[in-house]
Amino acid sequence: MSVTAAAGFVAAGVACGIKPSGAADLALVATEDGRPVSVAAVFTTNRATAAPVLVSRDHLTVTRGRAAAVVLNSGCANAATGAAGRADAEETCALVAGRLGCGRDEVLVCSTGLIGYRLPMDAVRSGVGPLVAARSVEGGEAAAHAILTTDTVDKQVVVTGRTADGHFTVGGMAKGAAMLAPNMATMLAVLTTDALVDPVDLKAILVDAVADTFNLLLVDGATSTNDTVILLASGRAGAIEPAALDGPLRETCAALAAAMASDAEGATRVARIQLTGAVSVDEARAAARAVAGSQLVQCSLHGGDPYWGRIVSELGSAGVAFDPDRVSVDYGGHRVCEGGVAVDHDVAAVAQHMAGRDVVVTADLGLGSGAATVLTTDLGPGYIAENMGTS
Amino acid sequence: MSVTAAAGFVAAGVACGIKPSGAADLALVATEDGRPVSVAAVFTTNRATAAPVLVSRDHLTVTRGRAAAVVLNSGCANAATGAAGRADAEETCALVAGRLGCGRDEVLVCSTGLIGYRLPMDAVRSGVGPLVAARSVEGGEAAAHAILTTDTVDKQVVVTGRTADGHFTVGGMAKGAAMLAPNMATMLAVLTTDALVDPVDLKAILVDAVADTFNLLLVDGATSTNDTVILLASGRAGAIEPAALDGPLRETCAALAAAMASDAEGATRVARIQLTGAVSVDEARAAARAVAGSQLVQCSLHGGDPYWGRIVSELGSAGVAFDPDRVSVDYGGHRVCEGGVAVDHDVAAVAQHMAGRDVVVTADLGLGSGAATVLTTDLGPGYIAENMGTS
Repeated sequence: MSVTAAAGFVAAGVACGIKPSGAADLALVATEDGRPVSVAAVFTTNRATAAPVLVSRDHLTVTRGRAAAVVLNSGCANAATGAAGRADAEETCALVAGRLGCGRDEVLVCSTGLIGYRLPMDAVRSGVGPLVAARSVEGGEAAAHAILTTDTVDKQVVVTGRTADGHFTVGGMAKGAAMLAPNMATMLAVLTTDALVDPVDLKAILVDAVADTFNLLLVDGATSTNDTVILLASGRAGAIEPAALDGPLRETCAALAAAMASDAEGATRVARIQLTGAVSVDEARAAARAVAGSQLVQCSLHGGDPYWGRIVSELGSAGVAFDPDRVSVDYGGHRVCEGGVAVDHDVAAVAQHMAGRDVVVTADLGLGSGAATVLTTDLGPGYIAENMGTS
Repeated sequence: MSVTAAAGFVAAGVACGIKPSGAADLALVATEDGRPVSVAAVFTTNRATAAPVLVSRDHLTVTRGRAAAVVLNSGCANAATGAAGRADAEETCALVAGRLGCGRDEVLVCSTGLIGYRLPMDAVRSGVGPLVAARSVEGGEAAAHAILTTDTVDKQVVVTGRTADGHFTVGGMAKGAAMLAPNMATMLAVLTTDALVDPVDLKAILVDAVADTFNLLLVDGATSTNDTVILLASGRAGAIEPAALDGPLRETCAALAAAMASDAEGATRVARIQLTGAVSVDEARAAARAVAGSQLVQCSLHGGDPYWGRIVSELGSAGVAFDPDRVSVDYGGHRVCEGGVAVDHDVAAVAQHMAGRDVVVTADLGLGSGAATVLTTDLGPGYIAENMGTS
């Protein structure tokens, strides 16, 4: 009941026929009473912005950060669909609003699936009634399941936050991965809390949490047309210092990001790229992303090959301050390169670490105190098999 | 005799024991008389610069663009080897210079192979004598062969240029690929001409030709620590207008770039990404590179899947001016997306085009007259198999 763990939320998931397979493809997260609450969202920076992103962004502007529900579909991204696609997304919101008794602008919409195809609106029209009727506190799991595309497991997290005189809850569900770019592209996450936080504070806290979690997850560098993270705050647990939400929200986002990395298409290993010694945090992130996003580094990870030369080469071409004589590289805490050249190390211990499911690569640039950690995976034949065809 | 087709050059290739396999691994391109001629070079922008690049760059500065020879080895990149690696590269030049009777600074050096390993200098010392002794006009093929790493074929090109009162020749050899980043990383190219051009003009012409050819070849975005393109001009064919060299040099570079794409590791298809309608040439290049470098686009190419949604998504996140309602995409001249949405097309004809060895993707941003073409390949299991281990 992840996304409904915070007091005041209900959810549902049904199959309405968007997916030819007949699998669940329509999900709802709504306030229990159908009335709007504080909401904040972060959307893709892709300029080929999908219709649901354009519509949700418009609705948030109109309501100044209030929403009663989020409706999500899998099986079709409703991207590269022009004005007709935007009308479809608006109609989807209106259908849900009609059933919930809230305003159309108080419903946000997310889609995930193939780009370039219209949403089959007959299926959506037939599905909204059963979807809204099925909403309940127990419906979180069904909702989390209905948003999956090539994901193999549901992704749900619940974290409890404490305040001086009580506690509050943060819950969430997610699918896919922004920059893991699964077959159907797109990461979507809906987060809820029962803390009372106004929309302006909510947005600031969400933006920071996303920057440090979802945005530091990188497998193939693709930014989807549909990426969306939405956070609803019901207020049922009462007012809190906004800053108190920060830790639990980050924890929730980080756990969902890790779940996405673990379930990335074709991945057999998850690697944590820990970058230290950069001249700034921004340069640390850029350098860590360059290493994490490197096809060659990912191929080495797939083979469990401790070829640190590729790490150093990516750092040198990352566009950040770099001194080849100061860089060091560790695998699982074993130093393999220091001062920019090979050093003796326990070859067997490194091989054992590289053969595991979780690999830690630490690279120190030796220049400053900027640090960042990025999560990535290996690149294996499974990724290609998943992505070489869409039909 | 590619690299020796231009009058005034000799070449050789031998096996000296750098590669444990015993394959050829040491190459020489030199002037026939051992005297220095005009030379220009373009080097990697990677800040983890390999020792041979640092040494060659120093030598060019000292001589102000004169060289008598280039010595190249495969089997070891001499990168991430610190001061000792630079001394090894200098010694290699000195050994060649001693045999040729020219100055040490008049010899340039290139290496390709694994990063992080010292050059086995005993092998180099034993190999230089036989290498220099073997130099001849017929030695171009042996030289082209001795610089290969995971390449499966020699890459040699000869182009003839015409002037008002005669003609001149441009020849060249290359290995690997800068941004195709094969297992052993690195692209190296040595080009020769018998035209008489001073070093300043030679550099300007070379920089332009490389920008439009080698730098528009992109498979996985990796910029090697060792990338080097060197152009020697013997002057044997007499003085020409420097601009007359431009066309033949571009043709030579483009042919070598195409040869590298065709021979890219694990590649089964070569795709030409033709980007038009950008607001500038720079933005056209950036957009074409974003499409060409996309793992998802490359997976689609591998499967022969005409999923244009990935093309539009990459254009939208390429960081260039983009209007989703103006973009169009063609496969092999068949329009599949217009005004940002799907259009009816001959599905069988598109499928047939995508199934071929050479795929042409045309994307028009509909905003201006900026255009660029980038060459890439598909991403198949063969690439992973080649790059998952180095031992």
